[in-house]
Amino acid sequence: MTSESKNQEFDQELANDPEYRAAVIDLLAVLAVGELTAFERMAADSVLAPTYADKAAMGELATIEFKHFIALRNRLIELGADPEVALEPFRQTLEDFHTKTKPTDWLEGLMKAFVGDGIGLDFYREISSYVDPRTRELVLEVCDDLSQAAYVVDRIRLAIVEDPKVAGRLALWGRRLVGEALSQAQRVAAERDALSALIIGGIDRPGADLAEIGRMLARLTESHSRRMADLGLAA
Amino acid sequence: MTSESKNQEFDQELANDPEYRAAVIDLLAVLAVGELTAFERMAADSVLAPTYADKAAMGELATIEFKHFIALRNRLIELGADPEVALEPFRQTLEDFHTKTKPTDWLEGLMKAFVGDGIGLDFYREISSYVDPRTRELVLEVCDDLSQAAYVVDRIRLAIVEDPKVAGRLALWGRRLVGEALSQAQRVAAERDALSALIIGGIDRPGADLAEIGRMLARLTESHSRRMADLGLAA
Repeated sequence: MTSESKNQEFDQELANDPEYRAAVIDLLAVLAVGELTAFERMAADSVLAPTYADKAAMGELATIEFKHFIALRNRLIELGADPEVALEPFRQTLEDFHTKTKPTDWLEGLMKAFVGDGIGLDFYREISSYVDPRTRELVLEVCDDLSQAAYVVDRIRLAIVEDPKVAGRLALWGRRLVGEALSQAQRVAAERDALSALIIGGIDRPGADLAEIGRMLARLTESHSRRMADLGLAA
Repeated sequence: MTSESKNQEFDQELANDPEYRAAVIDLLAVLAVGELTAFERMAADSVLAPTYADKAAMGELATIEFKHFIALRNRLIELGADPEVALEPFRQTLEDFHTKTKPTDWLEGLMKAFVGDGIGLDFYREISSYVDPRTRELVLEVCDDLSQAAYVVDRIRLAIVEDPKVAGRLALWGRRLVGEALSQAQRVAAERDALSALIIGGIDRPGADLAEIGRMLARLTESHSRRMADLGLAA
């Protein structure tokens, strides 16, 4: 069987399981809105950058996010979803996240691109183990981009060396980013039943039990602490 | 002679004519800052877009501008210029342009991307006839992108059909965009002797006479009027 006919068969399967199809569409849609708003905000935060090298690094990150948005939107269209309808339920949540975590300077913007995006992408990677291979592949593809991570880590470490007082402020900022991300994630989980059912399971599909969800949260927390440690910051 | 060794020879020629080299660096730098700030502002203006299709179109434009910025920056580095130093003289001018032409709604943002960028790119295309072939090629390359023009034209025409009062406001906005662009261009010309000398000529290089400059301005005005007419607006 060719890969294309396999894909068509899978898309047919999705059509036969409306609850699962709704969950996949929600997953791709929340990711798409996340990538798009990240693109808009990172490009806007580039205005805060003190050097053109910084602007180039932030712009590079932003354009990658935009490319991911297009890939997700195209897949939604393939699945027969109208992007305008599919994305709308997540618009306000993501806007609220960005409004509540508007960086006041360049370092906060960098931290947000690295730490805020990091925990979000880790979360979607975790979810990807509950979906079909084709969806998983796309989710992992759009979550796999740390091309500028080394740059961000170096810039923040250097800023802390230059002015050690910065560390305390950025550590607090990191906690605020995670807190806001979690509170928006809870809001999405509460509002989107199909999406929560992806993780906790549905009638015909086994999901994660409480112990597995606990381990997932532990992994997310661990990765976050590792990222903060890379920056020389307390989590 | 290979194309690469020709290029090296040309770069050597540039090194031997410091005044011309300064002019080329200024030209590439002002274009680079223009592309970068356009990227930052378009991505920020994407927040104003009413639909995801609009955001996708604006984001596409923005990422193309960023790609051009990188190409120009890379060429500056090849020429031995430090981008931080080369771009700095144009930062304030471009920021002032954007501050003075901040769109208050989505239609104004679209117009700015089409009409404001349009007159800027026409101007650089005109200048490209006064520079060496290699520089000309790069300038024309970064000025040649109207991938979303049809989309912008359709969106604005549709908005005018839906609410004819919009036309008067947008016509005024178009005039303001051009006025601000001209006033910033005059400021650059007054401050950057090498760049102005590109057009009006130097000791060893013939430039444009007054009649030719007049014809150039006529061509710019004509193209602008044509763009406005495409939108169904009076210039």
